[in-house]
Formats: sequence, C-alpha cells, structure tokens
Amino acid sequence: VDDDALFAVITRQRACRQYRDTPVDDATVERLLTAATYAPSAENHQPWVFVVVRNATARAEIAGSMQRAWETAGRAYSETRLTPAVLGDVDRGMTGGFAGAPVFIVVAGDAQRSAKPTLPSSIFPAVQNMLLTATALGLGSALTTIATVHAGELARIVALPEHLVPLAVVPVGYPVHPLAPPRREPFSEHTHRERFGNPW
Amino acid sequence: VDDDALFAVITRQRACRQYRDTPVDDATVERLLTAATYAPSAENHQPWVFVVVRNATARAEIAGSMQRAWETAGRAYSETRLTPAVLGDVDRGMTGGFAGAPVFIVVAGDAQRSAKPTLPSSIFPAVQNMLLTATALGLGSALTTIATVHAGELARIVALPEHLVPLAVVPVGYPVHPLAPPRREPFSEHTHRERFGNPW
Repeated sequence: VDDDALFAVITRQRACRQYRDTPVDDATVERLLTAATYAPSAENHQPWVFVVVRNATARAEIAGSMQRAWETAGRAYSETRLTPAVLGDVDRGMTGGFAGAPVFIVVAGDAQRSAKPTLPSSIFPAVQNMLLTATALGLGSALTTIATVHAGELARIVALPEHLVPLAVVPVGYPVHPLAPPRREPFSEHTHRERFGNPW
Repeated sequence: VDDDALFAVITRQRACRQYRDTPVDDATVERLLTAATYAPSAENHQPWVFVVVRNATARAEIAGSMQRAWETAGRAYSETRLTPAVLGDVDRGMTGGFAGAPVFIVVAGDAQRSAKPTLPSSIFPAVQNMLLTATALGLGSALTTIATVHAGELARIVALPEHLVPLAVVPVGYPVHPLAPPRREPFSEHTHRERFGNPW
C-alpha cells in the first residue's frame, strides 16, 4: 500500500512553471521542510540550510538573477540539445514562470558541517523529499540550480555567510494548470547488468 | 492520503548497514529503477546510468575499494566530528556491512547528456526515489558515495567509459534487523525567514 501510494506520487512529480498567487501557509512549508530533513546525508551531518523567501522584492531579485543566468549562459548550451517543446518549457519557467511562485526556498549546504564535495549528495535527496511532499499536497514546485551561476548574488540577497554554499532554489506554490505526466525514457535504456554495455 | 503515506515512508527511510543474503529479484530492481527515472533532472536530460551488480566477485571488489577509501581518508576526517554511536554505525557499513548486500546499484551521470556541474543535482534526486521505494518495499538500502574516492577503480570494475561519472553506489537487500527511526534535528534549527540569521 505504501509502495503504491509512493509510486503514484513519484510518477506524477513534475516541475511546475506557472504558479497562482494563492499564498502557501507556514504549516505547509513546515511539512515540506520536515520531509526534507529526513533525507540521508553523509554520515548524518544534516548540512542543509533553508531560507524561506516570501518577500516580493527578494523573490523578484532572485528570479531576475536566474533569468540573466539563463539568457547569458544556460540557453546557449541548451538550444542545440533540447527539443523545441522542452526548450519552450524551460524558457517559460526562467522568463517569468518561476517568478510567480509565492515562496522560494533557497537551499544551501553547510561546509563547516560536512566536507564540501559531499554537499550535493547530502542536499539533493532532501530537495527531492521536498518536491515529492509538495506533489502529494497538490502544490507545484521545481528543482532549480541556475541561481547558483551567480552564487554571490544569491548569497547576498538572503545573507548567506561564506561557509554556506547555495545549491538550489525551489519555487513553491499552487499550479495554474494541472501538471501533465512527466516524459521519461524507460529505465531499461539506462540500465546495464554487471558491466556497462551489457543491457538490461 | 498520498501525503500521509508518503510522509510515513520518508520519515522511516534510513541507511541499512547489515543485509540478509536473501536475493532481490529483477522485478523489484526494476521497480526501484523506474522510480529513479521519474526524478527531475536538469532540463529533463535524464543523464542517469545504472549498473546492477549481483556478481559476488565484483561486489567484493567494490566493497573493498569503499573500505580502503574509508580507512585511508574518510575515517580520519570523521573521527573528530561524529559521536561514537554514529562513527560505529558508519564503521559497520564500511567494514563488511554493505558488502553483504546481494545487489549493488552503481549510479553514474552521463557528461555527454548534461553539463558536468549539473550531474549531482540530476542524479541524487533519482537515488532518493530509489531509496524511498526500497523503504516502502521493506528493503534496506543506503546512499554511499565513498567509492567515488577511487572513481577509476569503480569505473574499471563495471566498465564505465570516460564520459560516465560514477556518483554513488547503492547497496540493496533485505535488512537483518528492522531499522530504528532516523535521528534528525528539527527542521526549525536549519530554517530561516527571508534572510539567514532570522530563525524560523
């Protein structure tokens, strides 16, 4: 039963790129963050730091920084690699869609708690717990990392000290439209038995 | 309902460090890997590569490499930072516990699909989906990254070409003992409002 319920959430989780301005209350944010803290981390160091941003000016600054990073760097890399449909989706998020979310959760890793190279493996599972919980609650969310292209700017906006490494910004809010199912290749195209090159 | 079922799985997921030799069948492995592929990835590049290792010799080689990395590098860093209880847990996994799992899933990121700096944010959410699904199915699992200290060795064992970056090894199997609840600090100790330094 748990497995089916979990699988149903996992298989419908998807990046939301258009948000209603309906507020998200503290209890809901607390549920997302509690879920995040149950993720594994290297040797249980729990190096996650969350800054919950509701202030409209700060959100606009962060979204603006993301948009600039996309337009000056990300897009050129992606243009040749994405289908027009996926590129359109990403564009929509970067150029205003994410900006509409009423809450941004800035996620950083504490380099004083855990060695720097271990931070991503300790932080992104926590983010995934957050995204799944948002999905189960009917909220939209997305894992974005492009704000880390201008990490210093992001750190300044939310006053992160030097030893906290910003790794993600998660917009959270209610979706304007129900999200379509995610598009994924079958696992078997990515899976090998015993050694790479020996397909599943 | 989905939210409660999900939260129940999320809050009992924990690293398993002692495994039965009961085999894990293909259908179960497929469920874990399907769940993994529903995770988000940068621009939906899906850069994950899974090598499912059941061969006892290969598993022993991987576990041996992990143990050496722990004894020659990891342990010295951690000794001063962990409580004796947590250090004992980690020791148990590294010096034989993980080695007992009947399946190792080596997880790599494809640097030809997605820019290298985006690989961790695209791979670790997939690993978390795998761990949660394992938990829901009554399986033990763990997110380990220490094998990447000797990445070349790991790549050789499972024949990964140059452009596939190994990021994690996930042992999977049935736990010898029921897992105790995870030990976590409350989210509020890690959470700030609007700016770092303004506690939740």
